[in-house]
Amino acid sequence: MLNELYSIRMRAAEGGAHEQGGRHISGGERLGQKEELHKLATELLTKSLNHSRGDCDFIQLVIEKLQNQEIKTISPLPVSTEHVQNVTEGRKKAVSLLSFLGISDEAITQGLNFLKQSTHQRGAIIVDSQTGKRLDHRELKGVRVSRMDWHTQSWSNWSAFYQPFASSRIREALALASKVAASPYTIAELCWSDDLDYITGYVASSATGYIRITHLKNIGEDCGGRIFFVKQHCPLDDYISYLETTPVCITYENATKHGRRTSS
Amino acid sequence: MLNELYSIRMRAAEGGAHEQGGRHISGGERLGQKEELHKLATELLTKSLNHSRGDCDFIQLVIEKLQNQEIKTISPLPVSTEHVQNVTEGRKKAVSLLSFLGISDEAITQGLNFLKQSTHQRGAIIVDSQTGKRLDHRELKGVRVSRMDWHTQSWSNWSAFYQPFASSRIREALALASKVAASPYTIAELCWSDDLDYITGYVASSATGYIRITHLKNIGEDCGGRIFFVKQHCPLDDYISYLETTPVCITYENATKHGRRTSS
Ligand SMILES: Nc1ncnc2c1ncn2[C@@H]1O[C@H](COP(=O)(O)OP(=O)(O)OP(=O)(O)O)[C@@H](O)[C@H]1O
Ligand SMILES: Nc1ncnc2c1ncn2[C@@H]1O[C@H](COP(=O)(O)OP(=O)(O)OP(=O)(O)O)[C@@H](O)[C@H]1O
Ligand SMILES: [Mg+2]
Ligand SMILES: [Mg+2]
Ligand SMILES: [Mg+2]
Ligand SMILES: [Mg+2]
Repeated sequence: MLNELYSIRMRAAEGGAHEQGGRHISGGERLGQKEELHKLATELLTKSLNHSRGDCDFIQLVIEKLQNQEIKTISPLPVSTEHVQNVTEGRKKAVSLLSFLGISDEAITQGLNFLKQSTHQRGAIIVDSQTGKRLDHRELKGVRVSRMDWHTQSWSNWSAFYQPFASSRIREALALASKVAASPYTIAELCWSDDLDYITGYVASSATGYIRITHLKNIGEDCGGRIFFVKQHCPLDDYISYLETTPVCITYENATKHGRRTSS
Repeated sequence: MLNELYSIRMRAAEGGAHEQGGRHISGGERLGQKEELHKLATELLTKSLNHSRGDCDFIQLVIEKLQNQEIKTISPLPVSTEHVQNVTEGRKKAVSLLSFLGISDEAITQGLNFLKQSTHQRGAIIVDSQTGKRLDHRELKGVRVSRMDWHTQSWSNWSAFYQPFASSRIREALALASKVAASPYTIAELCWSDDLDYITGYVASSATGYIRITHLKNIGEDCGGRIFFVKQHCPLDDYISYLETTPVCITYENATKHGRRTSS
């Protein structure tokens, strides 16, 4: 029997709550059992209170028990790295990958422009892969992918195997990108962090895996975010509902088949 | 210089969030410095996850930094206990105290009736002490008094002195009642808990202090709440704003004058 799972989400801002105009500082989403909630809350608080984007004065934590929902089990995307010398080279690389995946020049330009000027966005924006039009109407809120996490043992196995990537940053980003890529409506995701001290970004898709690109912005810049390029005629409500609410557990092949969160 | 203070609030419900119709399980409000936030979050989570009212499936924690606001320092109300044999005797006692304080029979009846049938209320209701009319329009949300806590050393001193009362339940209730009674618009507060296992309630006012009454409901009942009886023509918005947002620190006479949260 599957143990009862809880979703725990955090968002933190400076200058008041996000909905009152506060600037986004940090966010995070995890899954865990009841007895893990204290530890997860502590980890999310620590992350928000020690953030390179600044000193938050608003933090919200929301814990929700998952109601007998089936947990979708997916594998992490395979990871590779493109080593580039500077931002120009990095963005050129991103463009060529997105283009290879069939995303129109117009959509790629829109996506890149959006990330370049996005300094307050707290969720992803959804872009039509052909027209380049933004499809969600969420403004600065965007669409925050939630209810995904690694199976605990799977993360241990994976991070032991991919030692240089064993950071909480990659843990979180790869869980997110794997959930996003698992939707049949996603063509690709483009991401670089809004954190001032982190300049590696990625292009991810089910076709190419998770391709890290070592320079997608310059150090000290606070712009960043995520663009989900979707197929034309993507059923937007269903897509957003999948991203926000379907519980997804990332399991890695070597993981025990009998641990928590494995489902059929 | 006063150290920076944070407010931390929790609310927990069963059957979804309160605003989605969930049943109120637990709530709490504390103040603390940055380095105390982890401990306070843990305490509030523990309280919500182990509650006599049931098993919550929604918990929200909100942390807000207080913005250079002056912290009002007040003393705890003096505490006394009325030992009664049963609910009938206890409620008669409450009625006579409220009546002595000048609250009309109509208002007392309204207040008592409200608490008798209130099983889902998460904040207090405000009642005109003469007409008995409910003044806030907050429905099940009510008015949740926030941003009050004991000065740490004061609580140690007070609870060492009043040993039998050294519980977190009395700690929280006395802080709340002292803040409420410190408003010039409050005539009295009537409270019994919505917890199934706690039947002692109280009448509190600046005139009488905090008078515990040992039976205000029967064990196993889930009705309860708080009524704030206010003077006629009370400026409602100001009153609610005081209750919800003015930071109040409860200090006890023996407490150090140089610790945190003492203000002029
Ligand atoms: N779960 C998510 N769903 C959708 N978009 C996200 C998600 N997490 C982050 N983003 C977007 O990507 C940007 C960069 O991600 P990043 O991880 O740096 O920030 P964060 O998750 O908001 O906070 P933190 O830096 O604490 O992780 C965010 O500002 C946000 O716009
Ligand atoms: N801070 C507050 N401000 C206003 N009303 C409150 C406050 N705390 C409690 N109440 C009201 O009094 C009732 C009884 O209080 P009680 O302390 O038992 O519950 P609680 O604070 O909601 O949760 P917990 O039982 O976890 O403390 C509550 O259900 C609520 O209606
Ligand atoms: Mg993140
Ligand atoms: Mg960030
Ligand atoms: Mg309480
Ligand atoms: Mg209660």
